[in-house]
Amino acid sequence: MVKPLVGVIMGSTSDWETMQDACAILEELQVPYEKKVVSAHRTPDLMFAYAEGAKQRGLEVIIAGAGGAAHLPGMVAAKTELPVIGVPVKSSTLNGLDSLLSIVQMPGGVPVATVAIGKAGAVNAGLLAAQILGIKYPEIQERFVARREAVRDKVLGDSDLA
Amino acid sequence: MVKPLVGVIMGSTSDWETMQDACAILEELQVPYEKKVVSAHRTPDLMFAYAEGAKQRGLEVIIAGAGGAAHLPGMVAAKTELPVIGVPVKSSTLNGLDSLLSIVQMPGGVPVATVAIGKAGAVNAGLLAAQILGIKYPEIQERFVARREAVRDKVLGDSDLA
Amino acid sequence: MVKPLVGVIMGSTSDWETMQDACAILEELQVPYEKKVVSAHRTPDLMFAYAEGAKQRGLEVIIAGAGGAAHLPGMVAAKTELPVIGVPVKSSTLNGLDSLLSIVQMPGGVPVATVAIGKAGAVNAGLLAAQILGIKYPEIQERFVARREAVRDKVLGDSDLA
Amino acid sequence: MVKPLVGVIMGSTSDWETMQDACAILEELQVPYEKKVVSAHRTPDLMFAYAEGAKQRGLEVIIAGAGGAAHLPGMVAAKTELPVIGVPVKSSTLNGLDSLLSIVQMPGGVPVATVAIGKAGAVNAGLLAAQILGIKYPEIQERFVARREAVRDKVLGDSDLA
Amino acid sequence: MVKPLVGVIMGSTSDWETMQDACAILEELQVPYEKKVVSAHRTPDLMFAYAEGAKQRGLEVIIAGAGGAAHLPGMVAAKTELPVIGVPVKSSTLNGLDSLLSIVQMPGGVPVATVAIGKAGAVNAGLLAAQILGIKYPEIQERFVARREAVRDKVLGDSDLA
Amino acid sequence: MVKPLVGVIMGSTSDWETMQDACAILEELQVPYEKKVVSAHRTPDLMFAYAEGAKQRGLEVIIAGAGGAAHLPGMVAAKTELPVIGVPVKSSTLNGLDSLLSIVQMPGGVPVATVAIGKAGAVNAGLLAAQILGIKYPEIQERFVARREAVRDKVLGDSDLA
Amino acid sequence: MVKPLVGVIMGSTSDWETMQDACAILEELQVPYEKKVVSAHRTPDLMFAYAEGAKQRGLEVIIAGAGGAAHLPGMVAAKTELPVIGVPVKSSTLNGLDSLLSIVQMPGGVPVATVAIGKAGAVNAGLLAAQILGIKYPEIQERFVARREAVRDKVLGDSDLA
Amino acid sequence: MVKPLVGVIMGSTSDWETMQDACAILEELQVPYEKKVVSAHRTPDLMFAYAEGAKQRGLEVIIAGAGGAAHLPGMVAAKTELPVIGVPVKSSTLNGLDSLLSIVQMPGGVPVATVAIGKAGAVNAGLLAAQILGIKYPEIQERFVARREAVRDKVLGDSDLA
Repeated sequence: MVKPLVGVIMGSTSDWETMQDACAILEELQVPYEKKVVSAHRTPDLMFAYAEGAKQRGLEVIIAGAGGAAHLPGMVAAKTELPVIGVPVKSSTLNGLDSLLSIVQMPGGVPVATVAIGKAGAVNAGLLAAQILGIKYPEIQERFVARREAVRDKVLGDSDLA
Repeated sequence: MVKPLVGVIMGSTSDWETMQDACAILEELQVPYEKKVVSAHRTPDLMFAYAEGAKQRGLEVIIAGAGGAAHLPGMVAAKTELPVIGVPVKSSTLNGLDSLLSIVQMPGGVPVATVAIGKAGAVNAGLLAAQILGIKYPEIQERFVARREAVRDKVLGDSDLA
Repeated sequence: MVKPLVGVIMGSTSDWETMQDACAILEELQVPYEKKVVSAHRTPDLMFAYAEGAKQRGLEVIIAGAGGAAHLPGMVAAKTELPVIGVPVKSSTLNGLDSLLSIVQMPGGVPVATVAIGKAGAVNAGLLAAQILGIKYPEIQERFVARREAVRDKVLGDSDLA
Repeated sequence: MVKPLVGVIMGSTSDWETMQDACAILEELQVPYEKKVVSAHRTPDLMFAYAEGAKQRGLEVIIAGAGGAAHLPGMVAAKTELPVIGVPVKSSTLNGLDSLLSIVQMPGGVPVATVAIGKAGAVNAGLLAAQILGIKYPEIQERFVARREAVRDKVLGDSDLA
Repeated sequence: MVKPLVGVIMGSTSDWETMQDACAILEELQVPYEKKVVSAHRTPDLMFAYAEGAKQRGLEVIIAGAGGAAHLPGMVAAKTELPVIGVPVKSSTLNGLDSLLSIVQMPGGVPVATVAIGKAGAVNAGLLAAQILGIKYPEIQERFVARREAVRDKVLGDSDLA
Repeated sequence: MVKPLVGVIMGSTSDWETMQDACAILEELQVPYEKKVVSAHRTPDLMFAYAEGAKQRGLEVIIAGAGGAAHLPGMVAAKTELPVIGVPVKSSTLNGLDSLLSIVQMPGGVPVATVAIGKAGAVNAGLLAAQILGIKYPEIQERFVARREAVRDKVLGDSDLA
Repeated sequence: MVKPLVGVIMGSTSDWETMQDACAILEELQVPYEKKVVSAHRTPDLMFAYAEGAKQRGLEVIIAGAGGAAHLPGMVAAKTELPVIGVPVKSSTLNGLDSLLSIVQMPGGVPVATVAIGKAGAVNAGLLAAQILGIKYPEIQERFVARREAVRDKVLGDSDLA
Repeated sequence: MVKPLVGVIMGSTSDWETMQDACAILEELQVPYEKKVVSAHRTPDLMFAYAEGAKQRGLEVIIAGAGGAAHLPGMVAAKTELPVIGVPVKSSTLNGLDSLLSIVQMPGGVPVATVAIGKAGAVNAGLLAAQILGIKYPEIQERFVARREAVRDKVLGDSDLA
């Protein structure tokens, strides 16, 4: 199980600061993944080739992060049959509200599974990919459940604000 | 394959106007589903029981629609290991911006796969569920691809605005 | 009168920075309280148990603070007959507008008494709890009135910007 | 128990369309109330007199609804020791977002217990008043609980969308 | 001409940082003014007394600055026949959008002459007061015009970005 | 006193629906006025000529209404020493939020006295013009005060919602 | 001069209601154009082919209209050296604010010349295309100027609101 | 080819921080330009003279940057037949949302080609000017294409996040 199941792509190297949190989760849950900068606007042909070939290469889920007029998740979704998770990266001017609306408000026909703006969203993109894969790979689901229980226990342990 | 794979729930009977579009897609793609009103605020115990028992009963994806302070998708996600798709129902006062933010801005740890506000979102929730199931069930993926090609051909056929 | 009358809960330890201002007011007005981290999403069962048992344990008001898709106040309100005060914690991306809408836009049937975003809101949550208790406990109302008069006198004393 | 415990006020007769839903709840729960148009901007002296005399006249909770630059709830709160519930009435231009922010964003020191925009908020204002009174008057709390259970049962009965 | 013509008031000492720019303009244009902290919520009686007595004491224009649920300008306007200029002070959470809407969205009947959020607004409040007084006092209008010409000449002199 | 003191201008004939409410107030208070369509974008030279000649022709206050990227009030203010009142006309797409921000967010140096979006704002523009003129013409101030008292009495008379 | 210089494309046949106003302007100014439905999400390959071949086929300007997560203008801009004008079509849920941000907030490197939301924007897209072509084709610039003068004269003729 | 083809203007010297990025692009693509501070509000006559004489002096495109109630681009567009590109400068209070709406929401008849808020927008304004000129001057289009290819190659070279 070393061939990547998840492709983590982002519109620019500056998005790595955010998107690394998705990769950290995938590593923690032992979900094989690959990562790459694929820009909808600056490398459109690469983007289409990446999306079109994704299933062929064995990927089963794509996580795409972008900011501002964030077209990457939606355009990749238009070119693949795989589920695409979109992470709205916080933009410098409008705090990511533009990124969020550009990703989530897709027209009927081409869904993007959108998560929260910024690093919380990147974490959740990793977890959501694991949940999706988990319905096919029980061991991933088990790791997801174990992690959730560990988080719960930690919160319970710290809950007294002592 | 008659046991439901997708649970479509919504916070109120008035959400059915929106959520029926998700069900129509599932029917079109022959994805077995069930539907139910489950209110986070008025039937919280039912909501928890539904979420906790979902996997046991054979569900693999949950679609949850709600409006306003829309807590249903996020709370269900907190109680199940299955991927949860959230549909922000258009609200009467803030046009669904409140629904969208209440669903998508989940904290790191508990993702909700959020789609667009309103009926376009409901359509896409059905399609996203099919894409997710499609990585496990090739026949669902095939139907998804066939539908997408049919839509494409129809758009191409009508593209001349004659 | 040492049994707590007010339960101050929050979704994460990082909310304490904000919520301590509610506790400071309760101490100043000698309103007995308890405080605890209770996460809607990471400890949902604890949240339900807390809300269900609140009245039994002698609590009369609950103050709940949370940020982002802030479900804690509304879900606690769904599980208790006590009045619930919601504090929208300022979020890192949308400045707490998401927290505010997720808390205040509750559907008819389950109210949350929402106060301002951030620390001003936490202060006011403490004062509102005292006002609510004050209709039953005259000594709390008296202390509330005395504090308000002291604040007024201080503002009057400083009003000349000399 | 015929002396009013709750004062329901609103900034204009046009707000009655919204605020009548608060009164309907109070009647349903047998909470004695009075209602009156009191405009912060057009009858400021009446507003101050109303707020100052409220406790003296036996009121224990005030519900105030207003739209646009909605100053009524906050100004009444500045002049009474009673808890004040604010209902943001939907405005014709900004859908009540202006009303909401004008009511909820009170500075530290003078809380307003804010509920949702529009008729859902008016319903919840009535219920919140009952919850607040319920910690002093057990029979009101009992009626509140009974109503909630009836609502829950009705939702459960209709949940199958048959 | 030493009796103040303009009253500059603000809701809190922390607003002075912003409002001093209004005073600086009034001094530059030799418009006699007074300044004072008058809080709508913490000193409501002082506010009413100030507004009611303003014309009697010889004031002809009032400038009122406040932030958040900014009720000071509108409530003063409700209690005086003098023109009231409102300055939305930038708030810590919503950047002054709440202040702006709370000041500008007054109902028909009670106008507040609203200027921009923050320090640019404070400068303009001083200038607007001078323009208003200028239709009665030609020497103030002359100073206003002279200042504007000086500003214009300075911009023209620096326009080459050399 | 038949020479106009107030110039009421608007960017398009479609703004008359809103701006007629300003004129109705001026008539009610017997303030002489003129009205004209002056478009910042379609008749820029007329706009400049109007603004430059306004004082010469005896005007003392200008009311300017516009929608969308509403440049009329601010550009007129740049070309006259008279106080300019801006009315944000409700736009078809963004409900007048664009009109409001385009009018109120003027840079330091050139104020526009902004009122509420839409017809309430037009009413208040008329009243504010009367208040401004009232500091010079006591009879206008008297009529303003008389009207306000009449409104107050009417509100008091209808306040019982009987 | 019958070969089209402007390509008018839109994401869906429902956008024609808006985009026909761009075509009407082009016809009025005798600018040869073609029109076509090209969906970024449903016909991505057609979109890329259209953009890549546009210059070859003699087009000099592209006008692209889309709503919601409006990716068409930006993606076409990524694939052509021609200037691309983007028209944000008014969306059913967020009034076109999502369309606007998705089109205008392009990252540095790939501009889209964005115009107003809705039909005013479509009109202006046609005019902007004519202005751009006008720097190369004097006769188009002349027609643009003649039209503007005619509009000005009409506004001047109607300016008295008689 | 040393006579400027592009005029880069901005409302204040403080906008240079943003607008220099437009000039840097024009230099990189060897497009001759001039730059100047021209304030709509503080130097309105200069603005009109600049716009009216622009074509006469040989300019073919104007880039105008401004913040807040940003009237410069729209007013210049009202006074020239040349295409005008508007750059919304990020404002200190509302993050440039006010600048964006004031520039983009122009009424039908007077277009402004609006780009993104802030420095990304300034970069794109320079590129868009080059694209517009490129349909007339093939060498500018060639340089534009060469730059885009260089950017693409750089992104491809860095895409592995190694």
